[in-house]
Amino acid sequence: MHASTTPAALYAQYEAKMRKIADLKNAAAVLEWDQETFLPAKGAAARRRQLATLRSTAHGWFTDQQMEDILQGLAESDKLSEVERSNVALTLQDYQKQKKYTAAFVEELSLATSTCYQAWVEASRHNDYGRFEPALRHMVSLKRQEAELLGYQAHPYDALLDDFEKGATVAMLDRIFAEVKDALQQFLSPILATGGAEEHLLHQSFDKDRQWSFGMEVLQTMGFDFEAGRQDLSPHPFTTSFSSQDVRLTTRVDEQDFGNMTWSCIHEGGHGLYEQGLPASAYGLPAGEAASLAIHESQSRLWENNVGRGRAFWRYFYPVLQRYFPEAFGGVEEEKFYRAINRVGPSLIRTEADELTYHFHIMIRYTLEKSLIDGTLTTSDLRDAWQQMYRQYLGVEVPDDRRGVLQDVHWSHGSFGYFPTYSLGSFYAAQFYRAACRDIPDLDTQVSQGKLLGLLEWLRQHIHRHGRIYPAEVLCEKVTGEKLQFRYFMDYVRAKYGELYPA
Amino acid sequence: MHASTTPAALYAQYEAKMRKIADLKNAAAVLEWDQETFLPAKGAAARRRQLATLRSTAHGWFTDQQMEDILQGLAESDKLSEVERSNVALTLQDYQKQKKYTAAFVEELSLATSTCYQAWVEASRHNDYGRFEPALRHMVSLKRQEAELLGYQAHPYDALLDDFEKGATVAMLDRIFAEVKDALQQFLSPILATGGAEEHLLHQSFDKDRQWSFGMEVLQTMGFDFEAGRQDLSPHPFTTSFSSQDVRLTTRVDEQDFGNMTWSCIHEGGHGLYEQGLPASAYGLPAGEAASLAIHESQSRLWENNVGRGRAFWRYFYPVLQRYFPEAFGGVEEEKFYRAINRVGPSLIRTEADELTYHFHIMIRYTLEKSLIDGTLTTSDLRDAWQQMYRQYLGVEVPDDRRGVLQDVHWSHGSFGYFPTYSLGSFYAAQFYRAACRDIPDLDTQVSQGKLLGLLEWLRQHIHRHGRIYPAEVLCEKVTGEKLQFRYFMDYVRAKYGELYPA
Repeated sequence: MHASTTPAALYAQYEAKMRKIADLKNAAAVLEWDQETFLPAKGAAARRRQLATLRSTAHGWFTDQQMEDILQGLAESDKLSEVERSNVALTLQDYQKQKKYTAAFVEELSLATSTCYQAWVEASRHNDYGRFEPALRHMVSLKRQEAELLGYQAHPYDALLDDFEKGATVAMLDRIFAEVKDALQQFLSPILATGGAEEHLLHQSFDKDRQWSFGMEVLQTMGFDFEAGRQDLSPHPFTTSFSSQDVRLTTRVDEQDFGNMTWSCIHEGGHGLYEQGLPASAYGLPAGEAASLAIHESQSRLWENNVGRGRAFWRYFYPVLQRYFPEAFGGVEEEKFYRAINRVGPSLIRTEADELTYHFHIMIRYTLEKSLIDGTLTTSDLRDAWQQMYRQYLGVEVPDDRRGVLQDVHWSHGSFGYFPTYSLGSFYAAQFYRAACRDIPDLDTQVSQGKLLGLLEWLRQHIHRHGRIYPAEVLCEKVTGEKLQFRYFMDYVRAKYGELYPA
Repeated sequence: MHASTTPAALYAQYEAKMRKIADLKNAAAVLEWDQETFLPAKGAAARRRQLATLRSTAHGWFTDQQMEDILQGLAESDKLSEVERSNVALTLQDYQKQKKYTAAFVEELSLATSTCYQAWVEASRHNDYGRFEPALRHMVSLKRQEAELLGYQAHPYDALLDDFEKGATVAMLDRIFAEVKDALQQFLSPILATGGAEEHLLHQSFDKDRQWSFGMEVLQTMGFDFEAGRQDLSPHPFTTSFSSQDVRLTTRVDEQDFGNMTWSCIHEGGHGLYEQGLPASAYGLPAGEAASLAIHESQSRLWENNVGRGRAFWRYFYPVLQRYFPEAFGGVEEEKFYRAINRVGPSLIRTEADELTYHFHIMIRYTLEKSLIDGTLTTSDLRDAWQQMYRQYLGVEVPDDRRGVLQDVHWSHGSFGYFPTYSLGSFYAAQFYRAACRDIPDLDTQVSQGKLLGLLEWLRQHIHRHGRIYPAEVLCEKVTGEKLQFRYFMDYVRAKYGELYPA
């Protein structure tokens, strides 16, 4: 059918179709954003069906015969530019993957996800894993089916990982996490024994409006473009985007906890800067999408931790903060504040953990979900396994399910394979930040003067503008000269926390 | 193809398809709402294409062969209920109308609309109709083509009116407006000669947050369900709905003008109550839609004018208002306030007109746009014609285009035939409110005690729950026992303003 179509015309067809599919997906993203920020309670049912129609239509367009014809026609062409070839190759991979899903399976999974999420909400309310377990059991069996349906080489979990981090495998993660566990445990054991700095500093009373204004000032300084995005409130902070010119952040404000808003703001700001930095001209194409979840997370964590919990950042921002909160911080020295925000200690809740012990929370989830998927752990034994691992890794007793196995929403969404990207994001962040410091010798000075745009420009240049053209590992090599190396994270940790907690 | 399909199964297909189309249209409505309330400036371009994709897909589904097969199969069936038959008949009418549009014409019109709107924005900025005229000329020629394409019996404007008010015709409007003009001019001439009450009362300084809170209290009292809707700020107040369980109002707050927010709030609240009263079970079907634009406007105007500018309403709300604004209203008697909010006088701007002279603004637009469509007026002569009619109808000199022919956005959108529904809405409102007073003998007392739910229940029962099943005129007969009669509006006017302005 393409005998009479030139490669350029066929590529134009491909672009047009991809962009219409993106229009539907972005419309769905607007509806989801509204759902989390503004939707009145009774509007939920109609919203669910509107989202289902948008998603199933987008999926239908992406997997139809026309798409196959276009992609096959383009795959045979040798007249495309390098970026065009990458776009087509990546889309073909996505297409082949999507085609493996039968309509019946998609429907069953979608139904099971609704049920499982409802069960999780219910179980959380009652603080009772028992109410979640049957739905989770069904979900796990479906995810195991999904792994078979997609196919894998070494481990069924690899098939699911691919959804979140293309190229990541159990073999790779097992190797990294073994290293992480050894290095962090060795480094942390003396620190955890000391107790740590005062933390009550951050738990005073902080006016909501002032917190909001401070957060907005930080985002401005980071270079977030408020003509191409905005920030609103939602119960759980997130970032979404409807084009690189319309990126939405959300945050939450806790009047008793200054850190809650501040680091969620910086974290989501990092995600948002990445989205704003993706090439607008590649709307709807792989070249206009984020490289991977771990790379996305590298951007949020680089800003949140490497920058936002650093001395240089607060050299500039602490006097600003003191002006916003003279009662709380007026008489507190910068060094004391810096130590308070970098306090290290074991905890029960992943999202409240410091940047070191955080990775134990991830390792626990990774180990458990991998075992659920390969069948060596059943959902009936999950709660016990969870409690045992928290004892073993963090030395804490889990007092109830809400602060234990029920704390994260991910499994109820069917997201098995998501958690590891959080840790990978931190490790990429350390390696990227090291490269940025190499390329911008006075970066620390710039940051300490509130000049954050040099760093942003570096990220734009080396990471953002490439979209999804390079796989995460390849991108990492291009940026840093090496594949992902966990040791750069440990170098960062040793330098920073070695000084804070001298042996 | 329907030999083997039962009517019930075919009707289920019809419902499912209509609801999926509604999902796309409602998704588009969410995107438009966001565009008016929250969209960052640079997001506009991607938003336009997302909306175009949603709209063209919805149009494609609505006019495809499957829809024709379903509708024809159902039209032949005698197994449907009365409401089902109405849904099918109305959908068939819509289908037949939509099929008349060629793809080429739709595209040209859509393009011309963008251009024309941009030209209007530009011309308004420069206060120069000359910059708008070429685009408007093209738009008028397209609307004349559209009238031919759709077909009509007596007058080409009838074909366009049908989009906004099915069943309305030039013959009917000419008759009504002749009556309106005579009766109102006769009634108003002595009033306009007197000058009117003080108005500066309403133009003091009114704190934004307090205005907002007062507006929210009014909406609560009217019975607007904030679990099935919300209110936000936008430059131009409007109401939209994504289902009867998710109705969005917007308002604007002018610190110098208390009336601006208050009546836009009540007006949009009236629209919103109608949307919330439509049967949720008929989502996506004619039975779940508003009867017509004029009926929609009857709901907003009944609340805004018949209720919201009445003595009874302020008997309850004036003390509330005084508590919100003790400085501005603490020492002002209720009667003085009542007279100020019902001041009558000629003006230049339609949206700021009182409820009597308002209809002259509409008649001017109706006369002009009808003449543009039948070719007896050209766009080159439009500005002169406008100025002459304002002199003739309202005795005012138009000082510039911004306060003249450029003041409304409607023509730039290609909305020819929309304006008359504003007047029809007021006339329906008067007739409906009279019927409500007949059915609820103590309505005035209820309103004066802040009890507005009896009226809402009456509107729900007699108007809202019927959706679009009855044409406006038939609905009016069912509710009031008569077709639309302009004299009920004049009865209302004479009773209210005869007392305010005794001869």
